[in-house]
Amino acid sequence: MTTRAVPSMPSSVSPLAPKHVPDMPPVAGVRLATAQAGIRYKGRTDVLLALLDEGTAAAGVFTRSKCPSAPVEWCRANLKSAKSAKNFARALVVNSGNANAFTGKSGREATKATAQIAARSAGCKTGEVFLASTGVIGEPLDATKFAPVMDDLAARAREGDFLDAAKAIMTTDTFPKVSTATAKIGAAKVTICGIAKGAGMIAPDMATMLSFVFTDAAIAAPALQAMLKDGVANTFNAVTIDGDTSTSDTLMLFATGKANHPRIARASDPRLKAFKKALHDVLGNLSEQVARDGEGARKLVEISVEGAASNASARKIAMSIANSPLVKTAIAGEDANWGRVVMAVGKAGEPADRDKLSIWFGGIRVAHKGARDPSYDEAQVSAKMKEQVIPLKVALGMGKGRDRVLTCDLTKDYVAINGDYRS
Amino acid sequence: MTTRAVPSMPSSVSPLAPKHVPDMPPVAGVRLATAQAGIRYKGRTDVLLALLDEGTAAAGVFTRSKCPSAPVEWCRANLKSAKSAKNFARALVVNSGNANAFTGKSGREATKATAQIAARSAGCKTGEVFLASTGVIGEPLDATKFAPVMDDLAARAREGDFLDAAKAIMTTDTFPKVSTATAKIGAAKVTICGIAKGAGMIAPDMATMLSFVFTDAAIAAPALQAMLKDGVANTFNAVTIDGDTSTSDTLMLFATGKANHPRIARASDPRLKAFKKALHDVLGNLSEQVARDGEGARKLVEISVEGAASNASARKIAMSIANSPLVKTAIAGEDANWGRVVMAVGKAGEPADRDKLSIWFGGIRVAHKGARDPSYDEAQVSAKMKEQVIPLKVALGMGKGRDRVLTCDLTKDYVAINGDYRS
Repeated sequence: MTTRAVPSMPSSVSPLAPKHVPDMPPVAGVRLATAQAGIRYKGRTDVLLALLDEGTAAAGVFTRSKCPSAPVEWCRANLKSAKSAKNFARALVVNSGNANAFTGKSGREATKATAQIAARSAGCKTGEVFLASTGVIGEPLDATKFAPVMDDLAARAREGDFLDAAKAIMTTDTFPKVSTATAKIGAAKVTICGIAKGAGMIAPDMATMLSFVFTDAAIAAPALQAMLKDGVANTFNAVTIDGDTSTSDTLMLFATGKANHPRIARASDPRLKAFKKALHDVLGNLSEQVARDGEGARKLVEISVEGAASNASARKIAMSIANSPLVKTAIAGEDANWGRVVMAVGKAGEPADRDKLSIWFGGIRVAHKGARDPSYDEAQVSAKMKEQVIPLKVALGMGKGRDRVLTCDLTKDYVAINGDYRS
Repeated sequence: MTTRAVPSMPSSVSPLAPKHVPDMPPVAGVRLATAQAGIRYKGRTDVLLALLDEGTAAAGVFTRSKCPSAPVEWCRANLKSAKSAKNFARALVVNSGNANAFTGKSGREATKATAQIAARSAGCKTGEVFLASTGVIGEPLDATKFAPVMDDLAARAREGDFLDAAKAIMTTDTFPKVSTATAKIGAAKVTICGIAKGAGMIAPDMATMLSFVFTDAAIAAPALQAMLKDGVANTFNAVTIDGDTSTSDTLMLFATGKANHPRIARASDPRLKAFKKALHDVLGNLSEQVARDGEGARKLVEISVEGAASNASARKIAMSIANSPLVKTAIAGEDANWGRVVMAVGKAGEPADRDKLSIWFGGIRVAHKGARDPSYDEAQVSAKMKEQVIPLKVALGMGKGRDRVLTCDLTKDYVAINGDYRS
């Protein structure tokens, strides 16, 4: 946390980046604008303003850190209870370059000042302004930098431009992350557009996974909140880069209600079936992009666990494998090292029996019932390990629990990005 | 786990290795010999036989892995209950090069065959033979390799030679680990000598922390077991390299009873006070050497947590910091990155209040009450971060819980050792 060169945008895009960026349609009731406020970076946008039409319902899930950032506390306070139908949003301000985390009293003052500036420009209450910050931890955020650009942002804001929005919230992400889907609610077609940034804690001192999803559907806040909570379990909460949890993780969902269908009050409403699936697709796609842009990542690893004592047990075992430095370095070395997978299963502390374990790399069973599978073809496995996407499956033989999580390999570039940046 | 070059002894000794190796006195009733059995390595010893005089009491603690190795299961079965006064040992056989872990039925057969070979050479029962193996996981261990060397080992075994013993059990450790202490029990002077090997899971496929401690004190097995359990909590259990738990971790304590004092039955006996301290010193010294030889380590990190809600809470927070890849890479980069320490405190899930946190690097307070300490001298902190031993202290302000754990930094060499070994 000592003085160092201001980071520039990373020069090379992750080899795991999606080959195609989707066309992002506008979402009625959502207007976007970005600006260069000069918070930390030079020559790039670092502030996003999203203006939301009156009546936009809001939902959010946040980091489980016991030491959350000031903006996370601000959003939580604005959202009131998960069952409140009065969670409305009119403006979202996101900045990159400074996370406003662990900044003490000045951090709380900065969030309040930022919300006041945005509320004035947007013509709304501060309680309808949501905030997120990503970047350096522990440096005071100078909220006065927002004042000169906010009125102009509000004046320029227009529908569409989700790709620009995604670019403004990047830190050392190597590509902007966007995703979109449509669904029918009754006869009405509704649109979902989401943006996200960066996995884990990114150098130098960069923190935070942020994602914002917008829809024109007319859905009350408690239903949105319930669907977001459900949707995140197997998407954003099933991705890990290094096991380190940001102080600032934020995922928000906004529904403007501009689509032409009656407002839906409950998440259990059967008319939401297609919407739920579309929302899940967007969350799954964005979270996979986060895994594909893990620091130094060269391989996407898809870990499936089946036959666990329960789904929760499968999740713990999958995360133990996904967060094991030894499994991740082996995959970086293109080594189907199932011994380390056994180690990671064993250390999870969940019910397991060594002699019932089977393990597959790239669809090829390499270990079976507690020992090396004598029938596997080593050359075939080695070829699979050279691919960019590595499926790793474990069958425990204990019960019916199953789960799937995504991670990436652990390369020397991860260490370089997070340790070698002193100038 | 595919074919690769046989590893040789590492060429460079860790910069954190102790500058002096202590003279290791003999322990009456303990005879040692080593041999080259050619299990995996060429041109070095890879088998240790320790012969223990009749009446030697034994105690052990083992990996918490749910998928332990066959030798761990063998030792656990031989030790019966922790309260049994009939836990006796006559022989210990340790091999390096193959961990006999995840080897299925053949693994159990190999342990039995090894114990039979050793029992025959030592003239004891197989239930008095203890085994440990370290090295490749998932490869069958060929127990027939022990037969040609065992009789000779038994014939050559003599008192002393702990340094040779420590060398025979190394895998990719960069230095042998020995420690010794003496204590008085009544008027008698007793000796404790211990050896240990390798932290975490060491390339290629090497696993396991092994440690064996010998004393001539006359102490019954249940008392030994109780003292070992107490002694390990703040020594071996307070060291982490990468958070990955071996399938084979084994720590055993043998007491031959040759010293000239009446046999002691209970760990609570006040005559054991000095012995307990000496045992703790040996365990602490060996476990610190393990941390100093972590894969790729360039810095020893001593993490102290105080003011936690409880000692258990302090341990969880200290381990969360010690296992955070982002904290460890920052220390490798000589960066006093307290923002990442906040992150690691927050993710531990234990009671914490961001605005009460204070953090010290190298004795210098860099953060106080939830924000950067305005008074610290950055040049002074930077100089401290260049040292080999980095004290990192966190004060939580929540209660009186405290703890201390040791770890090392995370360098590119760790990734190279664990990922780059394919030939």
